[in-house]
Amino acid sequence: MKDFFNVVTIEQALAFRSVFSEMEIETVPLMDAYERVLAEPVTATENLPDFRRSTMDGFAVRATSTFGATESNPAFLTVKGTSLMGESSDFSIGTGEACRISTGGMLPDGADSVVMIEHTEAMDSTTIEVYRSAAPGQHVIEPGEDFLKDEILLAEGRWLRAQEIGLLAAFGRDTLKVYRKPVVAIISTGDEVVPVTETPTPGKIRDINSYTLTSMVKACGAVPVSYGIVRDNSESLYQSLSLALKTSDVVLVSGGSSVGARDVTIVSALPQPRILFHGISISPGKPTILAMSQNKALWGLPGHVVSAMIVFLKIVKPFIEHISGVKGLMSQTIRVPACLSRNLSSAQGRVDYVRVKLKTVDGKLVADPILGKSGLINTMVKADGLIEIGLNVEGLDQGEPVEVELLN
Amino acid sequence: MKDFFNVVTIEQALAFRSVFSEMEIETVPLMDAYERVLAEPVTATENLPDFRRSTMDGFAVRATSTFGATESNPAFLTVKGTSLMGESSDFSIGTGEACRISTGGMLPDGADSVVMIEHTEAMDSTTIEVYRSAAPGQHVIEPGEDFLKDEILLAEGRWLRAQEIGLLAAFGRDTLKVYRKPVVAIISTGDEVVPVTETPTPGKIRDINSYTLTSMVKACGAVPVSYGIVRDNSESLYQSLSLALKTSDVVLVSGGSSVGARDVTIVSALPQPRILFHGISISPGKPTILAMSQNKALWGLPGHVVSAMIVFLKIVKPFIEHISGVKGLMSQTIRVPACLSRNLSSAQGRVDYVRVKLKTVDGKLVADPILGKSGLINTMVKADGLIEIGLNVEGLDQGEPVEVELLN
Repeated sequence: MKDFFNVVTIEQALAFRSVFSEMEIETVPLMDAYERVLAEPVTATENLPDFRRSTMDGFAVRATSTFGATESNPAFLTVKGTSLMGESSDFSIGTGEACRISTGGMLPDGADSVVMIEHTEAMDSTTIEVYRSAAPGQHVIEPGEDFLKDEILLAEGRWLRAQEIGLLAAFGRDTLKVYRKPVVAIISTGDEVVPVTETPTPGKIRDINSYTLTSMVKACGAVPVSYGIVRDNSESLYQSLSLALKTSDVVLVSGGSSVGARDVTIVSALPQPRILFHGISISPGKPTILAMSQNKALWGLPGHVVSAMIVFLKIVKPFIEHISGVKGLMSQTIRVPACLSRNLSSAQGRVDYVRVKLKTVDGKLVADPILGKSGLINTMVKADGLIEIGLNVEGLDQGEPVEVELLN
Repeated sequence: MKDFFNVVTIEQALAFRSVFSEMEIETVPLMDAYERVLAEPVTATENLPDFRRSTMDGFAVRATSTFGATESNPAFLTVKGTSLMGESSDFSIGTGEACRISTGGMLPDGADSVVMIEHTEAMDSTTIEVYRSAAPGQHVIEPGEDFLKDEILLAEGRWLRAQEIGLLAAFGRDTLKVYRKPVVAIISTGDEVVPVTETPTPGKIRDINSYTLTSMVKACGAVPVSYGIVRDNSESLYQSLSLALKTSDVVLVSGGSSVGARDVTIVSALPQPRILFHGISISPGKPTILAMSQNKALWGLPGHVVSAMIVFLKIVKPFIEHISGVKGLMSQTIRVPACLSRNLSSAQGRVDYVRVKLKTVDGKLVADPILGKSGLINTMVKADGLIEIGLNVEGLDQGEPVEVELLN
């Protein structure tokens, strides 16, 4: 049985991503582009802002007109008018002159700074006293200060958060090229698994994996399609896999005998079959299989809920990100440094993923391992993150620095 | 002008949440409950698992039958049959007996542990040799080991991640009570603001806030409705606010003169008006207004994109979480400890929020401030998080420990 496995390291498992291509490119309205993946580089078509903008309510001036101004020795300026919001002024500002301006207003020609209204007093309808010396550029955003024309704004493959969407709005990108979201089929197998709506008879349990995997696929920005529970026999599995491969980009099968010789037989019967690996040297999660048929990935995941979740997070998620076109990390994967609260042992020759709870002790983050079998979902409900114990590490000591990958 | 403001601290601003009620409760299928807020406590209706389950492929035995077994002195056991997946066995296991069992299978009565198949050898069709001593409970999940009957699984107000959805599946909760998602109207104002599809003439800029705020509302799990740009005059604003209040649960207005005396006049003309505060002692974001009409919240946010985003993150997001029914923190708000890369000054009497980039130096997280005016969106695009400089703090020193709230 053991000989049958083609066991790979996690790095080798991740490297198989490159066998699979990215999704096609589609065009979407900017309003729908939040949490999508940009499929084109975006360059600044103009300066942002494109004009000299006030950041305060007050008066636009030449700074030199105010040099040396104090409470006891104010500068007297002539008010030439008002800069109307959203309009350019038909006058310019010379030495000794000023114009009323609001936050966001455009400075008239000749003006290089803004004096806050609090530092002025109106003498009459056309004269103000200024009590403070203004520096050139004060309370002003210069043309191109946010972004310069031709600057690269966002690279292809960028995961779009609120601020990137705002940036694209600023440059008038009302439509965008993004990668199509992959459709991910989810199949649960196992003769002991019953639908959530059923009361399990002795020896049976409800289908948890369809629900956790559906949620995790959503968290990756992909589109889950649940195929429910498929009976654990070759004919049923073959039928479901064939259908899922026709209608989806990726198929996830969890549980049952998904690492047995039989599955290889099933995969071999599919069009253009190839087994990429069969077993990963990680714990939990060793009995994982990656196969392909007609260039689509077919993942066999362990049946234990925690094993399936960890394999998803560590290997399937990076895979889905890859075919989604993400370059670099999605912002959701966050790692924080912490110290370990107790000794942890580990077998050499595999990478261990340990669930931890984070607490702050004396201002420092401490990672407290949650021990429990990989069939127990309570360990994931209580966990804040995962730590990794490397392939050739026998264990970690109490107080040792670790990096915690946060679960969201 | 200054006298007009009823400026509050951020704590006071947050405390006004309690004036507003939670959304109504609705029932949804479990498959749609990911990232919803639970509106009922959930208790374990049974033990999970409800039977003694194997975590390995091997033989179910009484541990005592194997005591002292070694390679050179194996225990001989009689195989009584096979525990079929998802079924209880019609035989029991006594001393000196064993039965074949797969991962996830139910142990027959009398068996208390599982011997891995690797530690056995078949002598004939009904006899095996066992080479290792099993401990009672070995490779077994006991009834109730994941959760005990009557244990509280999830409290009301819990934000549901993949693992909570899985937990609810395990207990057969195919439908759930959750809070309705609040509908949030988003209005941009300002005569200098033009739609994203237009090329701005000098003095005008494109509408960024409709896009950033729409995205941030989505990130809170609420439903954004963009009303686009409303002209900055009393009549237009009154009309739009009236409509938005009728069709939404919350209204966000950004930009324009949204902190002027005129807005108070507009709010006063709405049904059952009340101004809760007018200005917050934070930077950026001071010119923020919270009003209510017919028990619905109406937020006036600053026009500067970064100010509006920070006010949203620090005050509007906790408000939306409150009316969404979230108790405690949503998992998305993550704070990590870091050290400051340089000195930062701050004015006393206000809380400053500084955008920072995180880097790892010698295994420690360092927060590097991104300086720049609150009208510059590039500062948010580059930022990984925000740090806070307290109300009565003059500044922070290089190397000082800070807590970084991550932006996602």
